[in-house]
Amino acid sequence: LSEFSLIDWIRRRAPGNDRTLVGIGDDCATLRFRPGADVLVTADMLLDGRHFRLDEVDPAQVGHKVLAVNLSDIAAMAGLPVAAFATVALPRSRATELARSIVDGMIPLAEQFGVGRAGGAPTAWEGPLAVSVTLLGEAAGRGPVGRSGARPGDAICITGPLGGSLLGRHLRPEPRIEAALAMNRAVALHAMIDISDGLASDLQHILDESGGLGATLDAELIMIHADAYAAARLDGRTPLDHALNDGEDFELCFTLEPDDLKHLRIAPAFAPEVRRIGTIEVEPGLRLRTPDDLVAPLSPRGFDHLAAGP
Amino acid sequence: LSEFSLIDWIRRRAPGNDRTLVGIGDDCATLRFRPGADVLVTADMLLDGRHFRLDEVDPAQVGHKVLAVNLSDIAAMAGLPVAAFATVALPRSRATELARSIVDGMIPLAEQFGVGRAGGAPTAWEGPLAVSVTLLGEAAGRGPVGRSGARPGDAICITGPLGGSLLGRHLRPEPRIEAALAMNRAVALHAMIDISDGLASDLQHILDESGGLGATLDAELIMIHADAYAAARLDGRTPLDHALNDGEDFELCFTLEPDDLKHLRIAPAFAPEVRRIGTIEVEPGLRLRTPDDLVAPLSPRGFDHLAAGP
Repeated sequence: LSEFSLIDWIRRRAPGNDRTLVGIGDDCATLRFRPGADVLVTADMLLDGRHFRLDEVDPAQVGHKVLAVNLSDIAAMAGLPVAAFATVALPRSRATELARSIVDGMIPLAEQFGVGRAGGAPTAWEGPLAVSVTLLGEAAGRGPVGRSGARPGDAICITGPLGGSLLGRHLRPEPRIEAALAMNRAVALHAMIDISDGLASDLQHILDESGGLGATLDAELIMIHADAYAAARLDGRTPLDHALNDGEDFELCFTLEPDDLKHLRIAPAFAPEVRRIGTIEVEPGLRLRTPDDLVAPLSPRGFDHLAAGP
Repeated sequence: LSEFSLIDWIRRRAPGNDRTLVGIGDDCATLRFRPGADVLVTADMLLDGRHFRLDEVDPAQVGHKVLAVNLSDIAAMAGLPVAAFATVALPRSRATELARSIVDGMIPLAEQFGVGRAGGAPTAWEGPLAVSVTLLGEAAGRGPVGRSGARPGDAICITGPLGGSLLGRHLRPEPRIEAALAMNRAVALHAMIDISDGLASDLQHILDESGGLGATLDAELIMIHADAYAAARLDGRTPLDHALNDGEDFELCFTLEPDDLKHLRIAPAFAPEVRRIGTIEVEPGLRLRTPDDLVAPLSPRGFDHLAAGP
């Protein structure tokens, strides 16, 4: 299969949407946004040996995941996804088979969230599989929710249980697009981020970007995923440590006026649980209140994308 | 240097522009387009060993080129560039040095064309260097010029001499953004493409996308670059063959009403030469008229991105 017949195949398999005036097959895609709407853009790359091992996963899972992590970034701004662009470096010996599987893995998510496949480029090389997706979205509701709007006194909430995703859940994230859109219509969200590096680390980004605020989390309120208990049995770390520091949960962490919590009526289909887990404070730093009512400093163990891989 | 200090460095080194409401440092960038303007998007990836050899080039040239090829795609739609997003897979042993050089290589072009650096992600891995850029632009003038609007009788033009770019010119393409914007204001361009795969191959895309038209090119009118003569001396192919089939020229090939040619007053600074080289015809296929007035079929030797590398 040559490049052009592969692109023709992708064109037929993955159509555009009503926002895609010109899709695959020209120098640029041409997209139409709602007049006046701000455009959201995010880009992520998944690499063999770094984010997954091609000999251990179905390539369709790689396609699903790379689109899902980008959708999660759009969710973190409470945006509406519009169109995706993929560039893929394919190991030459399996180029066509891999390209088809990756596209097949993207299609169910793209259809679920109305994402048009608008362009991109497959290229064969001698290196390992690298898949980069750029996702465009549109601001919705009260506008994009950034990381910098947290205020002292805000309630800190999460949309679901955390920890242990590396046992397998990390390969099939469920982007919280509908939950974020519904919440952003219902109340003024002050700051939001998706939990990709770990709750402590990602909440620290909100504190830093909001002018150096602090926060205290309540250990008893943090929802701990069943996978975090399973991971704890394997490595001896506590389930709470997994919930605080494991990455790739792709739930949302957000802050809002405590009084607005009661207006958050999220349909369970969109986000099974939304729970307050702490409070934003003036005093910088991240703290954890334990069940015996002691408050101890909490150091995020950030995920450094330039450090050694798994 | 960790990921976050590298991103901070990029943030300082490469600021956004007045379209970038939120740039690097949130889950998504937030861009503002002219209300009602269509959004143009293109993505390209450059790979070590496939598009360049890292042991033979300055990494800054890779940064320049990956942005330039994307700018050339925006030029081919007669669009205005707005903001760029880069995802980069960096060989671990040189990750920080490479990331800095690549960004440094992008900056002069970004400043020249008003492109805001709005986001992206550097990641270290064990594989070779892979640099992917997605560029967003805005439709301008009479709107985006696609590949599908050529009509029988149209004049076929190019913006400069072709061939032999692999001798070195391919590493420093000059995207024809201003020329395309000026021409699209002056006249109705029917179809346009940038010459990345080779004149014959890229013109064939216009013929295919315009409903299966044909064209005859006049061998005596095709501007042949000095590098094509140098390449011909090295490999024994003719200079004309290089001009017709070498890729990576990044000049524009476009079609328009022959009467409109006289309204094309392109400032020489934007495109040194614009010349008519042939005519669009109803009869499918690509033909070449030789100096002795014979017309022979011309077979494009397309560049297949899935085939073997250089």
